[in-house]
Amino acid sequence: MGLKTKEQYRQSLNDGRVIFWGGEKITDVMNHPRFRVPIEVAARDYDYDAPGMRDIRTYETEDGTLAHRVFQVPRTADDLTKRVQMSANMSIVGGVTGVYMALLQIKGKLAEVNPQFAENIERMYKYARDNDLRGAECITDAKGDRSRKAHEQDDPDLYVRVVDRNKDGIVVRGAKLHISAAALCHELVIMPTKSMRQDEADYALAFAVPTNAPGLKIVNRNFAPPNLDPFDYPSSAHHSMPEGFVIFDDVFVPWDRVFLCGESQLSGAFAGSLGLWERTGGVIAAAEQSKVMVGLAQLVAEQQGKERDPHIQDMIAELICYAETIRMGLEYAIQNYETTSTGMVHPNTLGINVAKYYYASNYHLMVRNLQDIAGGLTVTLPEDADFRNPESGAYLRKYMHAKPGVDIDQRRRIYSLIRDSTADAYGGWHLVTALQAGGGLKAQRIVMSRTYDMKDAKHAALKAAGALPDEGHATAKAAE
Amino acid sequence: MGLKTKEQYRQSLNDGRVIFWGGEKITDVMNHPRFRVPIEVAARDYDYDAPGMRDIRTYETEDGTLAHRVFQVPRTADDLTKRVQMSANMSIVGGVTGVYMALLQIKGKLAEVNPQFAENIERMYKYARDNDLRGAECITDAKGDRSRKAHEQDDPDLYVRVVDRNKDGIVVRGAKLHISAAALCHELVIMPTKSMRQDEADYALAFAVPTNAPGLKIVNRNFAPPNLDPFDYPSSAHHSMPEGFVIFDDVFVPWDRVFLCGESQLSGAFAGSLGLWERTGGVIAAAEQSKVMVGLAQLVAEQQGKERDPHIQDMIAELICYAETIRMGLEYAIQNYETTSTGMVHPNTLGINVAKYYYASNYHLMVRNLQDIAGGLTVTLPEDADFRNPESGAYLRKYMHAKPGVDIDQRRRIYSLIRDSTADAYGGWHLVTALQAGGGLKAQRIVMSRTYDMKDAKHAALKAAGALPDEGHATAKAAE
Amino acid sequence: MGLKTKEQYRQSLNDGRVIFWGGEKITDVMNHPRFRVPIEVAARDYDYDAPGMRDIRTYETEDGTLAHRVFQVPRTADDLTKRVQMSANMSIVGGVTGVYMALLQIKGKLAEVNPQFAENIERMYKYARDNDLRGAECITDAKGDRSRKAHEQDDPDLYVRVVDRNKDGIVVRGAKLHISAAALCHELVIMPTKSMRQDEADYALAFAVPTNAPGLKIVNRNFAPPNLDPFDYPSSAHHSMPEGFVIFDDVFVPWDRVFLCGESQLSGAFAGSLGLWERTGGVIAAAEQSKVMVGLAQLVAEQQGKERDPHIQDMIAELICYAETIRMGLEYAIQNYETTSTGMVHPNTLGINVAKYYYASNYHLMVRNLQDIAGGLTVTLPEDADFRNPESGAYLRKYMHAKPGVDIDQRRRIYSLIRDSTADAYGGWHLVTALQAGGGLKAQRIVMSRTYDMKDAKHAALKAAGALPDEGHATAKAAE
Amino acid sequence: MGLKTKEQYRQSLNDGRVIFWGGEKITDVMNHPRFRVPIEVAARDYDYDAPGMRDIRTYETEDGTLAHRVFQVPRTADDLTKRVQMSANMSIVGGVTGVYMALLQIKGKLAEVNPQFAENIERMYKYARDNDLRGAECITDAKGDRSRKAHEQDDPDLYVRVVDRNKDGIVVRGAKLHISAAALCHELVIMPTKSMRQDEADYALAFAVPTNAPGLKIVNRNFAPPNLDPFDYPSSAHHSMPEGFVIFDDVFVPWDRVFLCGESQLSGAFAGSLGLWERTGGVIAAAEQSKVMVGLAQLVAEQQGKERDPHIQDMIAELICYAETIRMGLEYAIQNYETTSTGMVHPNTLGINVAKYYYASNYHLMVRNLQDIAGGLTVTLPEDADFRNPESGAYLRKYMHAKPGVDIDQRRRIYSLIRDSTADAYGGWHLVTALQAGGGLKAQRIVMSRTYDMKDAKHAALKAAGALPDEGHATAKAAE
Repeated sequence: MGLKTKEQYRQSLNDGRVIFWGGEKITDVMNHPRFRVPIEVAARDYDYDAPGMRDIRTYETEDGTLAHRVFQVPRTADDLTKRVQMSANMSIVGGVTGVYMALLQIKGKLAEVNPQFAENIERMYKYARDNDLRGAECITDAKGDRSRKAHEQDDPDLYVRVVDRNKDGIVVRGAKLHISAAALCHELVIMPTKSMRQDEADYALAFAVPTNAPGLKIVNRNFAPPNLDPFDYPSSAHHSMPEGFVIFDDVFVPWDRVFLCGESQLSGAFAGSLGLWERTGGVIAAAEQSKVMVGLAQLVAEQQGKERDPHIQDMIAELICYAETIRMGLEYAIQNYETTSTGMVHPNTLGINVAKYYYASNYHLMVRNLQDIAGGLTVTLPEDADFRNPESGAYLRKYMHAKPGVDIDQRRRIYSLIRDSTADAYGGWHLVTALQAGGGLKAQRIVMSRTYDMKDAKHAALKAAGALPDEGHATAKAAE
Repeated sequence: MGLKTKEQYRQSLNDGRVIFWGGEKITDVMNHPRFRVPIEVAARDYDYDAPGMRDIRTYETEDGTLAHRVFQVPRTADDLTKRVQMSANMSIVGGVTGVYMALLQIKGKLAEVNPQFAENIERMYKYARDNDLRGAECITDAKGDRSRKAHEQDDPDLYVRVVDRNKDGIVVRGAKLHISAAALCHELVIMPTKSMRQDEADYALAFAVPTNAPGLKIVNRNFAPPNLDPFDYPSSAHHSMPEGFVIFDDVFVPWDRVFLCGESQLSGAFAGSLGLWERTGGVIAAAEQSKVMVGLAQLVAEQQGKERDPHIQDMIAELICYAETIRMGLEYAIQNYETTSTGMVHPNTLGINVAKYYYASNYHLMVRNLQDIAGGLTVTLPEDADFRNPESGAYLRKYMHAKPGVDIDQRRRIYSLIRDSTADAYGGWHLVTALQAGGGLKAQRIVMSRTYDMKDAKHAALKAAGALPDEGHATAKAAE
Repeated sequence: MGLKTKEQYRQSLNDGRVIFWGGEKITDVMNHPRFRVPIEVAARDYDYDAPGMRDIRTYETEDGTLAHRVFQVPRTADDLTKRVQMSANMSIVGGVTGVYMALLQIKGKLAEVNPQFAENIERMYKYARDNDLRGAECITDAKGDRSRKAHEQDDPDLYVRVVDRNKDGIVVRGAKLHISAAALCHELVIMPTKSMRQDEADYALAFAVPTNAPGLKIVNRNFAPPNLDPFDYPSSAHHSMPEGFVIFDDVFVPWDRVFLCGESQLSGAFAGSLGLWERTGGVIAAAEQSKVMVGLAQLVAEQQGKERDPHIQDMIAELICYAETIRMGLEYAIQNYETTSTGMVHPNTLGINVAKYYYASNYHLMVRNLQDIAGGLTVTLPEDADFRNPESGAYLRKYMHAKPGVDIDQRRRIYSLIRDSTADAYGGWHLVTALQAGGGLKAQRIVMSRTYDMKDAKHAALKAAGALPDEGHATAKAAE
Repeated sequence: MGLKTKEQYRQSLNDGRVIFWGGEKITDVMNHPRFRVPIEVAARDYDYDAPGMRDIRTYETEDGTLAHRVFQVPRTADDLTKRVQMSANMSIVGGVTGVYMALLQIKGKLAEVNPQFAENIERMYKYARDNDLRGAECITDAKGDRSRKAHEQDDPDLYVRVVDRNKDGIVVRGAKLHISAAALCHELVIMPTKSMRQDEADYALAFAVPTNAPGLKIVNRNFAPPNLDPFDYPSSAHHSMPEGFVIFDDVFVPWDRVFLCGESQLSGAFAGSLGLWERTGGVIAAAEQSKVMVGLAQLVAEQQGKERDPHIQDMIAELICYAETIRMGLEYAIQNYETTSTGMVHPNTLGINVAKYYYASNYHLMVRNLQDIAGGLTVTLPEDADFRNPESGAYLRKYMHAKPGVDIDQRRRIYSLIRDSTADAYGGWHLVTALQAGGGLKAQRIVMSRTYDMKDAKHAALKAAGALPDEGHATAKAAE
């Protein structure tokens, strides 16, 4: 119990979990080259002694012990603000552990239907918190044919389902896709991917299992090969994290780890709650990322002597508008938080969805602006190895000179980051995840439509049209 | 002194001011048909006894008297919020009176250069406040050839300038364009349209004059003919306001009404300050207007039975995103206000400019969405007169039936408002003013670029690129 | 028989047709002020003696007589090109007479089902051609609740239907909406608004009736009041045309004027064919209109001395790209025409729909660009009456001076046209009709999807993916 | 002389050229792993015996010999059409050899200034043609500080320049960047990157040198590592090509290989001509690529059972509009070709630039649509190696099942291609080159503005405004 060290975290990964990657079955996770960078990244969250990080990464629980702040149940705007600060200093492994917030957010609603399930949430949350564990968000099913419901698929396992149940627990089968950092978490928290109807009751299923549970297997995928040159890949050489294709081959789950089993009417609530926290994480990252895009655009323009070109200035101003709109939306959503029946607060649902939608639907265009400013060198700049080769390096340095005060290495790093983060494997992953993480554009349109105060808008429209019952009358008279 | 009544306001307009409109020189302003609607609209701001309006429209000054809230110098976020509420219940005449806030905002800076000018601002502000006057924002000059500076024009009067000065005051000549509600205000507040260089000192000029000052003439223009059918024009039949082309034909201005005269270095500050308040007003109106657009879209969809059409739902969700992004930006700018040296607060400059830019640059697209949802009937629905004609009206009502519960008159009002506010003379005025009021898109791009924390963004970019002096070193080592 | 004169056309309108407008039942159509401009516009098409117009407006029929070229059945790309030239010199009244092309296009298909109907088309076409008549396109029904089919509406008349039939003909009831120029045509050609299912057979109805048929009534609507100042409204003072709400109150139609009656399987073909010709007309007009937008943008920029401002240049370049893309699409569609079974040719269906969709979906954005370039004066420039008033006019002319060589009246005309055509009643009508004429954006998306060679695209994608049955095999081997 | 074989081509690359890549100096180009795929790709152009390729890849010269069609000087639209067919079956190495067309296009103009240079062009063209050589387009200079001209840079070599000249030839120094396929060509054709002023005469320089010329060095860069799994990278495993950073370290060029030396007034013509042919190539590729995008979108939608989802259909329709607009623009530009003084034809300049601009400025948005349709699996689908591993593969295949008839491998290939071509290293390169190849968006805006018939557009605008000298008069009278 208590906070883990980085080394304890590393050691904890070799617990018998079944991991596949690149055609290989990996048993020694903690030492496998494919996992080197991801583990380094994840372990950093356990570095509680890093300068200034104690306050950012920990909080005192109601029991008087220290825990990672990701487990802090927010009760004020300030709690949410601290959560944002923490998120900006946390890996994806830490980020997905926010899944416990999603669970706690619906605990009250769940308690009305099945108090035992609500207690299970509370217990599993404390277990993770007190042991400084990481938990993955497992939501998206394989889905098969999207035009059919869960139980209508050719293979009934295309959505995760209960295949057996007894007094001790349940047996589940199926797969969850796109599970960020699954292989590097201790716990997997499984939720239904969508609202389920009554005839899909076997799919109305939420629970937690340890990553080394018998029958559980994870196949990994990543955008980054193991040994990227850190100069050429300033971001992806340091920040990669695998997504897991998580398979449940008749995994047993004891009842005290079950959060939902057949209560189809609550399925949508899980997905909705998780969606909010995922999108919040997305907006926090987008606020930072879009700021970096502005900075890169300005730097690359200045280094080329183009910062007074009105075309360039226009595009940078558009990037500023983009970055600030996201940041302001995040800030708004925090200050205008919503409160659940248990007194927990969470960011404003409509606000987060609006900010996420704005971010995601405009991201590709902003990448275009940055690439238009940066120019072709983004993809044609020779590799650092050719700069290190004295013969070719001397020529390259001569011709990469731009103007006094512009350091050539700094200039190359800027280009490398623009390429790495927008025009290379990592950049492509960003394009897709900007759209898809936390649900595609359509998912946000649905939430916006559901949470918007349409009654107020219709009233305002009717009033403006002079078509409110009484006012209409008045206007009609005036028209006579 | 003290609050005026509606009738006192009307009477006050026949003060000898020189007014032209439609080829006519209008002497009896208060009874001229062209001014009927505008005066009705403006007078409503003086209706302090309207239900619920006392608190919205007035506040207690430091002298213990009541004044219109437009004169309240905000000192807290709550003051700003109340100002927003007031603005949503105020005419353009009231709105432009916010010009005094723009003056007060730069009073401190002005005092450092010329304390007398700062005192003049304070005095003229109190004069307007205590007499419940309205003041117009006069900023845009005729400008002539935009590629030349003020003093380089063919006619030196193409920007307003000092042509004479003596111990009592100055004589000014020139014209100010697009002056909203000029003919219906008591005072005109004149400011430089842009930063002025030293050789443009004669144009670095700010002052206030009464609307009936000798030599001052106003030619009016409006989108709305005098007698629009209020059913067919639900908005513009009630809300029109003329813009003035204001001419200064050697107008004398006593020194105690002068705020700037030759101090070219301060010219930009006036324009910047006014721009902020104008854009704030624009964003407040846009938040309301975009909400009405959402409501209209939803109503017209429901009335046609198209509210479950996914194409329609997508476009309404886009409208929601638009409306909420503006509203959140406004709320952010209020909560994150900035404070001047005199303790006055004003909305966050970057926040307001971002929200205004987002609003203005996307407005035409949102109009497209609304018109795409509404369909051709927007412009082909017969006039109310044909519905009132029993012979044609019976047929029209028969074929305007949509479904049970949809009142035909309400349906017609919705279409009429969509047409009036987006696809008719008033709608066209909206398209242009969305872009141009408070300065065009370029003006906001400039302010965004100036006020954005570019240093922070560049630092974040350099850090992400591993190109900060020290970190770069660390990374370089790692790369070896 | 033979070509009509302008005066004969005017006279022909007082034929007892039942016309409503502005609450009035108008019997003397040819002399009513509301119809003054529309008739002037329509009559111009009959001015065969205007310089250069004989060749543009007429062709020699197979009978050796001259007829208006709108009746020429195109058989070559050159015929289509001449049709485009003619269209650019023709009113909307002439434009809608293209309805006969839509009928002729499906004559072959119709002959397979009912040869009598095909003959009726041929006869009615020759009747119109040989008497130089104009025919309106009547397609859109009242539609009621869009989520229900034609026969499921509360009132069965919400789509035009057969209410009786006997050996002489049929009796029809219902209404057609948005019928451009209906009141100024001699014939109304009625078609089903959409594909009809078998249970909607009573609504699978196409026919032609003279405008003065008993039981037929037209209620008119227009964007332009009767007496607009031609200086202030350079376009709409000269070019307005009413849309008709056309009511069929048990109108008798003899069998020889019926083109479809119950053959529901052919309903869609009428709508599809008319859609093509309507959209072709839309693209022809858009090519001209977008060129004018470029010219206006350039002129207003030059007159203000802003033509070297890079922001302005960017926006003008965007306008050029817009105008040329439309023009190139039109040219492509003509050169790559399609041929029907009867040897008639028509513009490429996919090409026209792509060009129309591009035009319509981007139109609002291009209006934004033009208005951003033009500035606030677009809506605040005083009326011509105030320029004609010597007292105000002298001041206005002084301050409207821009630079040597810029004529003030020309400058005012440019602003007036920008306002009239994009930011006033006529401009609003343009915004809506750009989207809705010839069917909304959705209608074009459907046609594009149907006519695109998807099989070819899928093949290309599979080939690129190495997933064609044989190639997949080859690649799989290579991968071993 | 005569056509080369694939093997002859391979052998020809080991000619002593100085090549750097990945920190290594590569002497055995033809056998180096980094060049394996690029050479395979380039050699395919020499496969004249491949089925159906003889006619596509060759033509008969005026001397009666066969040559690669890339050398055919087009004189008709049909020639251009055959060139398009050829281009769709040609590598980038072949594509850049189009540089000779760019030279020939300006030969006439050049002959007026210096007939010897024109003869040099003709001779070098025939030399390349008759020996079946490949020539690279070398245009972009290092440029240094963009706000300064060529001769004002800190280092005068930042643009390629003459450093010495004698009776035999000239000596050049500098570097050319982003040179596609430079290392795999036989000849390098160098041109000025922009218009040069008189004081930049040393930089007004065009010439050809063999790739193995003493002093010439090429540093390469590529998006693709040498050994990509062809299943996971269906496109980039087969189609990669390096870009070269080409260094001229005092390279001697004999006079008979010089095309421009000091005639600064002609510099712009080289860049303009090359730009046209580069953009033509870009549009040809874009037409194919956008068709593949439509196919991928449709396939991935069908395989998931989402092809009837209206949101999906909308996005596919947008992709169709995109693909067809590009294709129609290309077809237009070919049919409306322009003719030089020597009788050579080239695609319509405005048409190509409009199509290229439309393609490039909308490409990122279309990628967004495709990725929105495809979903997260685009980046999370496990590698083929994990499918080949029997243990993990069995699970993966089970859960990748979608519906009957959807082959799992085909499904994986579709996802892999979407990722590879839009969301991985190759996709990122596409994003940047869509914008930058043939010059950035700004370059096309400039050409569009220069080649558009602005006089005609202004005339049309003035006419519509009633502001043509005579017509204005007429209208003015009408207004009285």
